[in-house]
Amino acid sequence: MGIRTKLRRNRTQKKGMPPGSLVYIGDEQTEEVTISAIAFNSDKIDEYENASLDEVKTMIDSEKVTWVNVNGVHNVQLIDQISKHVGLHPLTTEDILNTEHRPKIDFFEDHLLAIVKMLDLPEESSDLDDEQVSFILMENTVITFQEKRGDLFDPVRLQLQESKGRIRKSGADFLFYSLLDVIFDQYLIIMDEMDDRIAQLEGMIMEDPDNHSLQDINQYKNTILQLKKTVWPVREVVNKLINRKVSYIKEDISFYLQDIHDHIVQANDMVETSRGQLYGLLDVYYSSLSMKMNEIMKVLTIVSTIFIPLTFIAGIYGMNFNNMPELSWEWSYPVVWIVMIIITGLMLMYFKRKKWF
Amino acid sequence: MGIRTKLRRNRTQKKGMPPGSLVYIGDEQTEEVTISAIAFNSDKIDEYENASLDEVKTMIDSEKVTWVNVNGVHNVQLIDQISKHVGLHPLTTEDILNTEHRPKIDFFEDHLLAIVKMLDLPEESSDLDDEQVSFILMENTVITFQEKRGDLFDPVRLQLQESKGRIRKSGADFLFYSLLDVIFDQYLIIMDEMDDRIAQLEGMIMEDPDNHSLQDINQYKNTILQLKKTVWPVREVVNKLINRKVSYIKEDISFYLQDIHDHIVQANDMVETSRGQLYGLLDVYYSSLSMKMNEIMKVLTIVSTIFIPLTFIAGIYGMNFNNMPELSWEWSYPVVWIVMIIITGLMLMYFKRKKWF
Amino acid sequence: MGIRTKLRRNRTQKKGMPPGSLVYIGDEQTEEVTISAIAFNSDKIDEYENASLDEVKTMIDSEKVTWVNVNGVHNVQLIDQISKHVGLHPLTTEDILNTEHRPKIDFFEDHLLAIVKMLDLPEESSDLDDEQVSFILMENTVITFQEKRGDLFDPVRLQLQESKGRIRKSGADFLFYSLLDVIFDQYLIIMDEMDDRIAQLEGMIMEDPDNHSLQDINQYKNTILQLKKTVWPVREVVNKLINRKVSYIKEDISFYLQDIHDHIVQANDMVETSRGQLYGLLDVYYSSLSMKMNEIMKVLTIVSTIFIPLTFIAGIYGMNFNNMPELSWEWSYPVVWIVMIIITGLMLMYFKRKKWF
Amino acid sequence: MGIRTKLRRNRTQKKGMPPGSLVYIGDEQTEEVTISAIAFNSDKIDEYENASLDEVKTMIDSEKVTWVNVNGVHNVQLIDQISKHVGLHPLTTEDILNTEHRPKIDFFEDHLLAIVKMLDLPEESSDLDDEQVSFILMENTVITFQEKRGDLFDPVRLQLQESKGRIRKSGADFLFYSLLDVIFDQYLIIMDEMDDRIAQLEGMIMEDPDNHSLQDINQYKNTILQLKKTVWPVREVVNKLINRKVSYIKEDISFYLQDIHDHIVQANDMVETSRGQLYGLLDVYYSSLSMKMNEIMKVLTIVSTIFIPLTFIAGIYGMNFNNMPELSWEWSYPVVWIVMIIITGLMLMYFKRKKWF
Amino acid sequence: MGIRTKLRRNRTQKKGMPPGSLVYIGDEQTEEVTISAIAFNSDKIDEYENASLDEVKTMIDSEKVTWVNVNGVHNVQLIDQISKHVGLHPLTTEDILNTEHRPKIDFFEDHLLAIVKMLDLPEESSDLDDEQVSFILMENTVITFQEKRGDLFDPVRLQLQESKGRIRKSGADFLFYSLLDVIFDQYLIIMDEMDDRIAQLEGMIMEDPDNHSLQDINQYKNTILQLKKTVWPVREVVNKLINRKVSYIKEDISFYLQDIHDHIVQANDMVETSRGQLYGLLDVYYSSLSMKMNEIMKVLTIVSTIFIPLTFIAGIYGMNFNNMPELSWEWSYPVVWIVMIIITGLMLMYFKRKKWF
Repeated sequence: MGIRTKLRRNRTQKKGMPPGSLVYIGDEQTEEVTISAIAFNSDKIDEYENASLDEVKTMIDSEKVTWVNVNGVHNVQLIDQISKHVGLHPLTTEDILNTEHRPKIDFFEDHLLAIVKMLDLPEESSDLDDEQVSFILMENTVITFQEKRGDLFDPVRLQLQESKGRIRKSGADFLFYSLLDVIFDQYLIIMDEMDDRIAQLEGMIMEDPDNHSLQDINQYKNTILQLKKTVWPVREVVNKLINRKVSYIKEDISFYLQDIHDHIVQANDMVETSRGQLYGLLDVYYSSLSMKMNEIMKVLTIVSTIFIPLTFIAGIYGMNFNNMPELSWEWSYPVVWIVMIIITGLMLMYFKRKKWF
Repeated sequence: MGIRTKLRRNRTQKKGMPPGSLVYIGDEQTEEVTISAIAFNSDKIDEYENASLDEVKTMIDSEKVTWVNVNGVHNVQLIDQISKHVGLHPLTTEDILNTEHRPKIDFFEDHLLAIVKMLDLPEESSDLDDEQVSFILMENTVITFQEKRGDLFDPVRLQLQESKGRIRKSGADFLFYSLLDVIFDQYLIIMDEMDDRIAQLEGMIMEDPDNHSLQDINQYKNTILQLKKTVWPVREVVNKLINRKVSYIKEDISFYLQDIHDHIVQANDMVETSRGQLYGLLDVYYSSLSMKMNEIMKVLTIVSTIFIPLTFIAGIYGMNFNNMPELSWEWSYPVVWIVMIIITGLMLMYFKRKKWF
Repeated sequence: MGIRTKLRRNRTQKKGMPPGSLVYIGDEQTEEVTISAIAFNSDKIDEYENASLDEVKTMIDSEKVTWVNVNGVHNVQLIDQISKHVGLHPLTTEDILNTEHRPKIDFFEDHLLAIVKMLDLPEESSDLDDEQVSFILMENTVITFQEKRGDLFDPVRLQLQESKGRIRKSGADFLFYSLLDVIFDQYLIIMDEMDDRIAQLEGMIMEDPDNHSLQDINQYKNTILQLKKTVWPVREVVNKLINRKVSYIKEDISFYLQDIHDHIVQANDMVETSRGQLYGLLDVYYSSLSMKMNEIMKVLTIVSTIFIPLTFIAGIYGMNFNNMPELSWEWSYPVVWIVMIIITGLMLMYFKRKKWF
Repeated sequence: MGIRTKLRRNRTQKKGMPPGSLVYIGDEQTEEVTISAIAFNSDKIDEYENASLDEVKTMIDSEKVTWVNVNGVHNVQLIDQISKHVGLHPLTTEDILNTEHRPKIDFFEDHLLAIVKMLDLPEESSDLDDEQVSFILMENTVITFQEKRGDLFDPVRLQLQESKGRIRKSGADFLFYSLLDVIFDQYLIIMDEMDDRIAQLEGMIMEDPDNHSLQDINQYKNTILQLKKTVWPVREVVNKLINRKVSYIKEDISFYLQDIHDHIVQANDMVETSRGQLYGLLDVYYSSLSMKMNEIMKVLTIVSTIFIPLTFIAGIYGMNFNNMPELSWEWSYPVVWIVMIIITGLMLMYFKRKKWF
Repeated sequence: MGIRTKLRRNRTQKKGMPPGSLVYIGDEQTEEVTISAIAFNSDKIDEYENASLDEVKTMIDSEKVTWVNVNGVHNVQLIDQISKHVGLHPLTTEDILNTEHRPKIDFFEDHLLAIVKMLDLPEESSDLDDEQVSFILMENTVITFQEKRGDLFDPVRLQLQESKGRIRKSGADFLFYSLLDVIFDQYLIIMDEMDDRIAQLEGMIMEDPDNHSLQDINQYKNTILQLKKTVWPVREVVNKLINRKVSYIKEDISFYLQDIHDHIVQANDMVETSRGQLYGLLDVYYSSLSMKMNEIMKVLTIVSTIFIPLTFIAGIYGMNFNNMPELSWEWSYPVVWIVMIIITGLMLMYFKRKKWF
């Protein structure tokens, strides 16, 4: 379960509408859609927590580098107005509204659209929390569309406010890169966390495998699958970013993009490694089940093979034949006991030699 | 079973006929083949429910954008006449008549042939219902050939009638795109449905795995295989559509085609995910079988290892030796009981420690 | 077994002979090698059942389109003479004589050599019957070399005799295409048949899996492997045919070749599908074995866990202690029976609740 | 074991020496290194069994086509002197001395180095015997370096001596081709032999699977792996030979090389097929184990389920209650027997119906 | 466990810092960072064990070929100063400080950065010890950054000191090549060692498989995975080195690089082989478990099927019916014994025939 249940929300509703129809596809959101905006140059920085549409428009049109962050894309009308203001194609707007989109990048003459996933791995669950972030990068403006409030971008905001690094001295392209960088670094952190959890799971399975363990393995496999689906296409996105020459990305950022590319490649490697480990876990699980079965069977076999022959001997002398000379011999009973003890001893030696206990 | 039984219908019949011989290959159809047609421009729309061949020919030759929809391809003669009127190659007509064709696209000087599958997943079965749709796209005309009445195109008809979106203002190429879009959107909806059903199946297998479950898994695997065979080649079809420059497809539709391409890529991803989940299910199934075996063996082992030794003790004192002093001791019987209870207690503690129950 | 036993016949014999040495490699053939020939143009057709070498040479040199069919390649001298007459390279002749050759195509200035396999699936066996057919296509002549009499080409002969389709009006290239078409259509028919048989096998395994079933699965896997080895390289052969421009293939046949290509791609798809189904079958087989084991264990466990405790109780009252008050109580015996029946009932309820029967 | 034990001989010794240091890497060899040489043209042939270094140098420098064959490469000094005489790069000489080299080909201005493996499959073992052969091909000379005496080249020597085929009329390049051809033909013969042995192994496993069988399967898997490692890179070697234009290979040999290429492709196919069969064998093995387990359990279950209830009945009437009316009835004993026989019969019918025997 | 635990050390700490921020990522190091340096030309060689930063700067700027080796990269400030002196990009310095970097190579106008892993396989553990080495290659200088003291470079130092081979006569590029060569040769030696250990493990599993064996297999799988991750990207690194033309690598080193490339390809082959062997081991393991189960079941079944019927017979004659004529017959008792012995004999023959012992 889980991986794609969200998907169906509004897809059927959209079925049959003309292409370019603007419909929000994604989880139901109750929060109001808000816009925060930051405009800055190396000297000055202006921040708006709850910017109105008009304020945003003014800022976008200004000379300063502007970062407009839209929290939520379920207010279709608002998104449409922003899109129209910056001149997006209706299909681009449609992509932004579809929070189930595959990571991708589309280049246009004066802007690009990049769609990636912001991931979070909650403490108590193995279900990845993914939130789609769409980026519009223009000459002087970055617009980010998130599914809901709360993101990973606070460090970037801090760098902007405190003018750390070269971010305040650079253009919209470097801001765009910095935001992507934060998102992709998180992938590596999540992969580390996954690695830890898989190691923990392995310990638990070694100790006591139950059907629940298999469910856990499968759930982690699903999580890894989801990670793969999130991280793999990003490689292509970054590749295109590096190779495509567009006016709104300056040459001197390409080395930074190469750095991102390295991280994505590493994240992909880590996904593959985790997948391999999960399959190893499956082997451990089945082997543990098999081991347990062997152990059960050993107990049964040891007890049965010792006592069944003894019971047979007892049965012999429980027969009621008139003519059973042993019955009346004086030492019969102790002799029978001695025979039984010897048989038991031989059996135990046999099992010992077979290393059954 | 299932996947390809339909295939053989008429293939052997055709064996040995000269290439280009027109033979219908597919399910037997009893319905009469009918033709519906719509001719429109941005001002006016004419609809014909049961168009005659002559009407159709006139419409195709007119200036208006015309959509001719042929319900059924088992009337070989009729198909042949239409094909000849629009100047198709005999092998193209042969492809249209073969409802078992692989999705493909062929470009000609003044038209193209695209063959795709229209899918449906019936409520109560996991057998995909696939129907082949062949498209002929010309300068001003789209001709669709379906296997039988009933399709997914009603929303497009509605858009045409109500003049929603840009469809009435655009040419045959946009109509062609809109029809493809409806078909491919259905793929995503079906993948969602499959996802749900697999989740359900998983629940059932966890509870009580039987041989039937495996059949279900295999049936879903077949369905996924069929989906893969349907969706995978479509990627190439759309790729060719995007990259091939032909006079009857205008430049400005390419962005829409790119959108279709994204959906197809996503559908392929979803197919792979479902396949992975089904293999996970197989593990769950085998593990459940193994678990059940363990449980059975535990019951047997617990009962046997407790009662076999006790029975042995009872057997000892059922022996008929004359000289068995214990038999005449007053407290023998209760002592034996106490010994038996102690043995049982120790055994239970042992099993408890092993977590066997 | 089976797949390659034929291979070794004469290979060791050939070891160490100079390259281009003409040695027949293949099954031992006792039949005499015969040559049939057909020369035709749109007006006239001449057929020879048992053409002499000289007749054949004359026909090849004539203006008419000629099809020379050699039944058997074990008469090395005869093949050599024909080869020399039409100017083949010694290595080409060597390839024709090696009936274990991989499908391939070689282009020369005035002729081509194509080697493909003609398949047959006998009614009562799953061992594919494959026969190599080598084609020499020249300007006006097609020469086919078969391993033995009997082929799939009768429909083509009929088309030639009855002048059906365009075959009599076309050149050697179209004849060549028609012959290939017949061979490749057979692949699809065999894949259909395989599909049926696999479905049948599945039914049998569900009912009663035995070791023989596994042998059957493996045999089908071998057959599928052989099909793959036969069909896969053909794709490349046809691709080369389509892309290579040579004087003896006219442009207007390329569309027909494209059609063949589609069929080969479909055959490859079907091979993959069948392979997937066979692996599914393996799962069914193992699961059935496991199920059967579970069933056996259930019977053992139910019987044992019911009767072993009861036997213990009986054993208790079979002890011979002097002081066992229950023995003399009047209702002891019926009470013991009642206790036993209650225990049995409880056990059965327990098993029922566990759904063991 | 086995695959790479040889590898380590001298590798650690070499660790840390400057690149181009000449150290023999391979099995310890006690035989003295000898050189045989053949110089020929279409008229005359001179053979030397134990040529001295000076004789060899004279022959290499002569106009005749010369084949120098060095038996053993553990005489580092000798190899070095030959290498220097013909002007090899130190790294090339290093490659020749390393008998664990991967098959490869290196082109230089006036010579090439080709390294391939000569294989042998001993009668009584599944461990492939591989011997590295390095070829130096120059304008008029072929130099072959083998690990030890004894090779597959006798047929070529015979062709040279008896002037069979075109070998005496051709140059060093054709000689080079002929030698490669002999080595690669051996691959196909070994694959045939492997195929036979796998079929035999399958028969043995079907009859009686033991742990030894699995070892055999794994050993064959290792052999196949080794074959793959030997044959796979050869494909690239031959490809490069075909495509690279160098002065010391004449155009007219390319068709012969194509022929070699076909054989290598076929050998690769056969390797894949054998691998598939070995995996099938693994299934047979596990299934046989499982079958045997089922059989054992059936015996246990049949015997237990028949006799445990009967023993219970006997136990009942072995109880010593005073008040057991049946004990004194006259027909009790035969009735009990009849009841027991009926129970046994019903059980047997039940097992029969379940097809347990 | 193990593979990536190190990774997390400082990654989270770095999260959110501006790109190009210099933070050490890796194991905690307590040793002080030291710099050793060697400056040489064909005449003279100067060595510094504990060079100061200024000494190093002077050497780098001198005409001689200089090799600066930095032991440890946890002294961020020091690394930064060196980086700045030679003009590295901040991101390059960041890569050097991140000891978890994937092997890679970056080319700049006057230098390159190569990152590879130096491996060691400790005697008593299967956890690979990997240490990152970053190379800066400039016109006259090689700078190596290691994680800690102790490396594989002593042979190179010896060659420099003793002026062995061409190293003293060559430039920084050849020194760079020599260092890489030492690192990559170690890969092959480790692969040999792994091969040995896997063979040993196989022996142990054949003898006595326990859950610990599986852990060992999984640990080796992880080690192989890690090797793959280390060796695989190196292929690309070397490829780029060969193909990229830069001023600071002379043409005549390319042949040496090709030699490295061959070794890396071979190392990759060996990794694949080991992986195949580990999977074979898994089969051996499961099979051994299964075998052991069969053996246990056989013992149980043999003992049970022999003694349960015998016990039943004894039970019969333990019944207390008044009317049991056999009880009073004189030879009953010995006859019962004979019957029992015959039954036992038949059973043993049956088991013998089934080859159960």
